[in-house]
Amino acid sequence: MEQELAHVLAEIKPVTPAWLARAQARLDSLTKPRGSLGRLEELAARYVAIREEELPELRKKRVVVFAADHGVVAEGVSAYPQDVTHQMVLNFLRGGAGINVLARQAGAQVEVVDLGVNHDFDPELHLIHRKVAYGTRNIAREPAMTREEALKALLVGVERAQEAVDEGADALAAGDMGIGNTTAAAALATVFTGRPTGAVTGRGTGIDDTAWRHKVAIINRALALHHPAPVDPVGALAAVGGLEIAGIAGLILGAAALRRPLLLDGFIAAAGAMVAVRLAPVTLDYLIAAHRSVEPGHQIMLGELGLMPLMNLQMRLGEGTGAVLGLGLLEAGVRIYREMATFAEAGVSDKSP
Amino acid sequence: MEQELAHVLAEIKPVTPAWLARAQARLDSLTKPRGSLGRLEELAARYVAIREEELPELRKKRVVVFAADHGVVAEGVSAYPQDVTHQMVLNFLRGGAGINVLARQAGAQVEVVDLGVNHDFDPELHLIHRKVAYGTRNIAREPAMTREEALKALLVGVERAQEAVDEGADALAAGDMGIGNTTAAAALATVFTGRPTGAVTGRGTGIDDTAWRHKVAIINRALALHHPAPVDPVGALAAVGGLEIAGIAGLILGAAALRRPLLLDGFIAAAGAMVAVRLAPVTLDYLIAAHRSVEPGHQIMLGELGLMPLMNLQMRLGEGTGAVLGLGLLEAGVRIYREMATFAEAGVSDKSP
Repeated sequence: MEQELAHVLAEIKPVTPAWLARAQARLDSLTKPRGSLGRLEELAARYVAIREEELPELRKKRVVVFAADHGVVAEGVSAYPQDVTHQMVLNFLRGGAGINVLARQAGAQVEVVDLGVNHDFDPELHLIHRKVAYGTRNIAREPAMTREEALKALLVGVERAQEAVDEGADALAAGDMGIGNTTAAAALATVFTGRPTGAVTGRGTGIDDTAWRHKVAIINRALALHHPAPVDPVGALAAVGGLEIAGIAGLILGAAALRRPLLLDGFIAAAGAMVAVRLAPVTLDYLIAAHRSVEPGHQIMLGELGLMPLMNLQMRLGEGTGAVLGLGLLEAGVRIYREMATFAEAGVSDKSP
Repeated sequence: MEQELAHVLAEIKPVTPAWLARAQARLDSLTKPRGSLGRLEELAARYVAIREEELPELRKKRVVVFAADHGVVAEGVSAYPQDVTHQMVLNFLRGGAGINVLARQAGAQVEVVDLGVNHDFDPELHLIHRKVAYGTRNIAREPAMTREEALKALLVGVERAQEAVDEGADALAAGDMGIGNTTAAAALATVFTGRPTGAVTGRGTGIDDTAWRHKVAIINRALALHHPAPVDPVGALAAVGGLEIAGIAGLILGAAALRRPLLLDGFIAAAGAMVAVRLAPVTLDYLIAAHRSVEPGHQIMLGELGLMPLMNLQMRLGEGTGAVLGLGLLEAGVRIYREMATFAEAGVSDKSP
């Protein structure tokens, strides 16, 4: 599996300054002051450079939501019981969750992948069944996964990117569901940013001060126990991460290898991005940070990645909800690029003749 | 006309805390941690409180773009020639401008109103012909308009809100087109915020340092000449404002009187909002600041109004482009409110039983 992953990493190529410049030249010919559409122009240029086409279309959008459980919830780190993970998966499949609603508005498909939910789903359900384990182990006592499990989950992410692109997806977004996963994300944030655990740990779904201090202590205990190192991203993922975080990292790598932009959601997705970018730094060229979540570790990781979020709507739901809103802005940029009239076409005077 | 305006102002009623609380109670029953959709929840609650309905729909959206010219361009304050105003109106009518593209994506109608373009349009054009004058006069030498002209333009705005609502509009957005109008907006920003002209004046469509210093000097000359006072908003509008800014102020007042939310665009729209809110402070309950533009005076006016912009995408185009993106977020909030499953419906465990 290490070799399979190495093949994916080798496929990821940077976007070229030549394509970015070519896109900006068209943007500058459109009937608006140069640069006046700000970040929409940046998104359009990035999309053109990723696709390497003169006038690329952006039609099919897909958000892939990876679900998995976390053994560390046994330590009382979450405000919600573990059952909520599988209950929410069923809610996704019925179309009643936040991600379903926002994806309908954005015209994006929602795919739900079971990578490690602690529940046996009906095999007939319209769910991508890829269970690697019934959740991670309790990181306060043992490593979350074996290295093989982490790699397996990562490669499922790569597979989902490939399938999406085979089915015509022009842009991807990554989402997550897993009670306890802000604990895993905060542990990875500590490993990859070198910041103190307390600085990158937030309230998750809504815990009080006492529970927060306990959450920080549990993460510190896990880090002391397993010594995850940023130079071995797969090892760190296996030690203190999550199966859904591995899936997100794989989806990111797969999207980059296949030249599709990937919209990052919040804190959990950023932890997946840290793993992916440590494995292949050029992956950054394909990442778009949709929003800045309320979780303090999110902004710290985005800063480490050098990504500037498009929005700050004080959200902290996960599921890919912020990422799907970001897909709407990416589409806005691409539509501007494709559909606006040029100064010449519209007979409008440009200031520089 | 003063009396007609007074009638409109008298119609504007605040939204009630009871409706906001009722909306929040439903939001708290949906399958997500309480408050985790941040500003989308705030938008949903505001919409419910504005409409005073249990489950209000948001279907028809309309952006009204007011166009007018500015006599002050004779002083060389803009990077583009005045002809661009009428050329861009034709571009709007053909669907090739930024606002057309973004409105198509958002599913919003675009209405274009000529309040004072220095050009005779073909009467057959699908344009709302309400020309009050062939542009304002040069504020460096005389008042921009008479008080009657300002009132006339304001009442056209009110009329367009009424027409939109009669035709079923659930939400409105205000846009502008007018070469030279950042000069008028900066003059009004100085009047209404009390900040130095230099602090609220920006680069508009893109002028250099020398032109910027000249623009500030011209605005200061106009202010010294006409002494506009914030306690007389219509007088200030007439002295140094613009016909399209008056139209925007009227649209805002009309929307508030008819209980429809109004999405504010950038710098020019904020100047219109300052006029509207000075005339009827409770209008604020109906205003949503869509984005923060690059123009420095925009954020200063939003701060004065106590409005927090939804996005910061480094935009500075006007036309209603930012407002239409904001309509998309408002719709997202309303969809969340209407379409998400409750904990009870989805069989998901709530943390507080």
